[in-house]
Amino acid sequence: MITADEQLAEMAAQALAEVRRQKPLVHNITNWVVTAFTANATLAVGASPVMAHAHEEAAEFARAAGAVVLNIGTLTPYTVQAMSLAGRAANELGVPVVLDPVGYGATELRTSATERLLGELRVHILRGNAAEMAGIGGRRAVIQGVDAVAAAPEAETAVAVARRWNLVAAVTAAVDSVSDGRRLLQVANGHHLLTRVTGTGCTASALVGAFAAVEPDGVLAAGAALVCLGVAAEQAGERASGPGTFAAHLLDTLHNLDETAVRRHARVAWAEPPC
Amino acid sequence: MITADEQLAEMAAQALAEVRRQKPLVHNITNWVVTAFTANATLAVGASPVMAHAHEEAAEFARAAGAVVLNIGTLTPYTVQAMSLAGRAANELGVPVVLDPVGYGATELRTSATERLLGELRVHILRGNAAEMAGIGGRRAVIQGVDAVAAAPEAETAVAVARRWNLVAAVTAAVDSVSDGRRLLQVANGHHLLTRVTGTGCTASALVGAFAAVEPDGVLAAGAALVCLGVAAEQAGERASGPGTFAAHLLDTLHNLDETAVRRHARVAWAEPPC
Amino acid sequence: MITADEQLAEMAAQALAEVRRQKPLVHNITNWVVTAFTANATLAVGASPVMAHAHEEAAEFARAAGAVVLNIGTLTPYTVQAMSLAGRAANELGVPVVLDPVGYGATELRTSATERLLGELRVHILRGNAAEMAGIGGRRAVIQGVDAVAAAPEAETAVAVARRWNLVAAVTAAVDSVSDGRRLLQVANGHHLLTRVTGTGCTASALVGAFAAVEPDGVLAAGAALVCLGVAAEQAGERASGPGTFAAHLLDTLHNLDETAVRRHARVAWAEPPC
Repeated sequence: MITADEQLAEMAAQALAEVRRQKPLVHNITNWVVTAFTANATLAVGASPVMAHAHEEAAEFARAAGAVVLNIGTLTPYTVQAMSLAGRAANELGVPVVLDPVGYGATELRTSATERLLGELRVHILRGNAAEMAGIGGRRAVIQGVDAVAAAPEAETAVAVARRWNLVAAVTAAVDSVSDGRRLLQVANGHHLLTRVTGTGCTASALVGAFAAVEPDGVLAAGAALVCLGVAAEQAGERASGPGTFAAHLLDTLHNLDETAVRRHARVAWAEPPC
Repeated sequence: MITADEQLAEMAAQALAEVRRQKPLVHNITNWVVTAFTANATLAVGASPVMAHAHEEAAEFARAAGAVVLNIGTLTPYTVQAMSLAGRAANELGVPVVLDPVGYGATELRTSATERLLGELRVHILRGNAAEMAGIGGRRAVIQGVDAVAAAPEAETAVAVARRWNLVAAVTAAVDSVSDGRRLLQVANGHHLLTRVTGTGCTASALVGAFAAVEPDGVLAAGAALVCLGVAAEQAGERASGPGTFAAHLLDTLHNLDETAVRRHARVAWAEPPC
Repeated sequence: MITADEQLAEMAAQALAEVRRQKPLVHNITNWVVTAFTANATLAVGASPVMAHAHEEAAEFARAAGAVVLNIGTLTPYTVQAMSLAGRAANELGVPVVLDPVGYGATELRTSATERLLGELRVHILRGNAAEMAGIGGRRAVIQGVDAVAAAPEAETAVAVARRWNLVAAVTAAVDSVSDGRRLLQVANGHHLLTRVTGTGCTASALVGAFAAVEPDGVLAAGAALVCLGVAAEQAGERASGPGTFAAHLLDTLHNLDETAVRRHARVAWAEPPC
């Protein structure tokens, strides 16, 4: 559905090469469910994950990192405070901060934690699903638990969130939309089994962090990460017989992903932002 | 060893179809070890998992859920209090509560937490292994860590626990026994590799929750969940070369499980409850 | 690169048989990232894992265990205190204690937690990577996050740490070095994909615990565990197409590992300790 922009495909391939060359440290404060898969995916793409949430060391790891990824799944007040400490330390040094507002709108705690972090921190990239992001953009969405069941058109949502919060918004869906409020980039890579494995959204956020560590333009960083994850997912989907083998193959295909495959299979393009 | 009851096999197949139709939200407060596998198995069977334990949101998710599953592996006083909050909110709205008393009898903390939750909450279904359940039923069992090494006959245990605590008791073993104190249902599906993967008992409890969300009769709900998990495990066992590939294939076979396979392979029947 | 010592290969094979015969309970207080994989690997090798960190039960599980494994990844002051309680209870009964100083030197919290535990407890075996162990031995190393990027020669490090702290030091690297300060044992088994799966170092520590439960000589216990993990990794590497399938196959090959394969493929030998 997207005619690939060759320059963007080339950018994604080069960003992947750069992640592998620099092996950036990505400091994650994330949830109990996805820690292992997120760390393994970060390793597979070529970066170096650290998962740490103690208040005594959150800022120290953030200062050493190429990017900080904050994820509010299984949040508690303790972990939100850790995210605040890590995020502020990252902001002081200009280390990019990625926020994943898991379940925004599902409970008061998640909504207020997201708004606290967006208020306190300079968040560079906000990565969420359509329902979470629609809520953050001030739109209505139907949410069941932490998974979206219906939402406003994603491209509009991405632009609205980016403008409202002055950041890069990445809305992942069948077609992903990434915007800084001015530009809109779309990625059509992916596989339906991504929605049947827990933590693939969280993994997308962690990979966005890895790419943000090497690419200062947040729209390009998020776009490249989503292209690489999507192309790897397509390759994994061909080998999988269901979500369990898909998850294992996805780590393999991320690890083996070559720049030529990214150039050839990337379905990424600029689109006209809705007014 | 069990001549399948055709009506029960049909019931299990229809319950699976109903889980997939309704996609119930299953709220889990569970342990660090099994969160990812439990969530993935819940997704694979067609339900929608949420894992959340903060006191500020435990009741809120419970009220939105089709079932609440409480699991005391890696418990702390904090998470037990979260289970109490979620369970009481569920009770107020009639949302079914499933309790998994991981390691009951192994430590004083686990024994007292189980008894606190059984005392405070209306638990609809209690799912445990033979040693845990023998202890809860007032019988002696030999326990090593959180795994049973010897126990009283499971059918008797299920009936005794159900009568003592006025709930549905599901004792999983080579042949599973489910009882409400009056009826006794047995399930002979399963595979020996289930005992070599951590968290398959916890996963059984989560699937019991998914089925309890769509089937009000707790004996039928637990029976249908154990049939589906057991048939999927048999299919996974045929493809696996050990516990690692078994775990991946189990998610695949749960995801691909069709009602015809359930009808054909279910080994489930009513049995005479021991006096 | 190592000419195998036949007696050591035989010792490793017999230790594996003994783990499977005794099925020791291994009590782990470990990090969020690796709990599931560590527990599954411990089950696969034939031991019985329990993961529990509540202060109310940490000592109780430690007293029931064949070995206690403490791992400071994702540490908080709460979990370090749990490690102290479990370790002291283990020391009172002579239950061997294994410590994994994840990220020593990366943050002040990790350095001080490691030193606190080494000071308070009689640690039988300390298992770490080259950079962590170089730091503990008083040498300099370049650390990025929790992964080593450069370090002093591992054999020297193992001997220095063992002498400085009066324990068995196991430094895992391309060639593992195990020393009690007097003897030096080296293991050349392994596979490069072990470094691309999160928690394989933590898993090594857990398996060292399982073997320490059945083999009182800590150098032999650690050596046997590293041989078995390394041989299983070589077999898994032959079947894997990347880190995701490698992790699944590693659990399979640990489960299926037979003593003949250990005898045949072990690359383990005594070496001359550097002065």
